[in-house]
Amino acid sequence: MTPSPFEHVDHIGIVVVDLDRALATFQGLLGFPLLERHHAPEHGVDLAFLDAGNLRLELLQPIDPTSGTARFLARRGEGPHHVCFVVSDIHAALEQLHRQGMALVDEEPRPGIHGLVAFVHPKATHGLMIELLQRQEP
Amino acid sequence: MTPSPFEHVDHIGIVVVDLDRALATFQGLLGFPLLERHHAPEHGVDLAFLDAGNLRLELLQPIDPTSGTARFLARRGEGPHHVCFVVSDIHAALEQLHRQGMALVDEEPRPGIHGLVAFVHPKATHGLMIELLQRQEP
Repeated sequence: MTPSPFEHVDHIGIVVVDLDRALATFQGLLGFPLLERHHAPEHGVDLAFLDAGNLRLELLQPIDPTSGTARFLARRGEGPHHVCFVVSDIHAALEQLHRQGMALVDEEPRPGIHGLVAFVHPKATHGLMIELLQRQEP
Repeated sequence: MTPSPFEHVDHIGIVVVDLDRALATFQGLLGFPLLERHHAPEHGVDLAFLDAGNLRLELLQPIDPTSGTARFLARRGEGPHHVCFVVSDIHAALEQLHRQGMALVDEEPRPGIHGLVAFVHPKATHGLMIELLQRQEP
C-alpha cells in the first residue's frame, strides 16, 4: 500500500445555480457560518466558504458558461462537485499519482484561492473529483 | 440565522460499482487506511469505511437493485452520494428541519451502521444529500 499524500479534507465543493439562494439554505436554514465570499472571474465562479466544523463547504456558482463548473451544472445539475484534500507537497503528490497511472486534470499545480491546487480526473477515482491543495496562507 | 444542529462531518458516502475495485483505488493507490468493511444486506449495500484524517470515506456498492443507492448508480453513475453530519439529538434536528419546510427522506430516524440516521432530500439542499447521524457506540 502506498503512503497517502492526503493529510485531511479541506472542503467539499458544491456547484449551485445561484449563490445567494444557496446561502439562504446553507447559512440561513442549516446554520453553517459564512467564512468568506469571493467574486472570482479568474476561476469562472462566484464562491463562498462556510464552516462545517471539521472542514468547510464551498458553494460555487458558475459565472462563465465555458468553465468546467458550468459544464458540470448543465450536465448533472446542482450537487457535490469535488472533495479537496490538503497535501504538504503538491508537486510530489502529483508525481506519485501520475506514476500510479491516475488520470489528472492538471499535470502541473496552478494558483487557487488558498494556495496551489490541482484536480485528479473523476474517471480515475470512481466519480469522486479530488482536488489537491498545498495551502499558502496570505 | 438558525443555530446549526450539525456538529461536524462524519463521512462522505461514495457509490461505486464494485467495492473491491474501489478499495484497490482508494486504499491501494490513494493510501487511505481501511477502517471497517461490512456486508449489509439490510441496507442493500456492501460498504467500507476508510480513514481520511478528519473524517471518513464510505464506499457503497449497491447489492439490491431496488435500493436508493442502486437507483442513484443507474441514473448518475459512480460518485459522491451523500455527506453525513453528526448531530447530538437527531429527533430535535429533524423537527427543526421539518419546521423549516425542508423535504426529508426520513421523517423518523432509523437504525444505521453506527447509530440512528435520517436523510434530508437533496432537492432541499441544492443537490447535496445530507445524512444526519446520532452516534451510538457499540
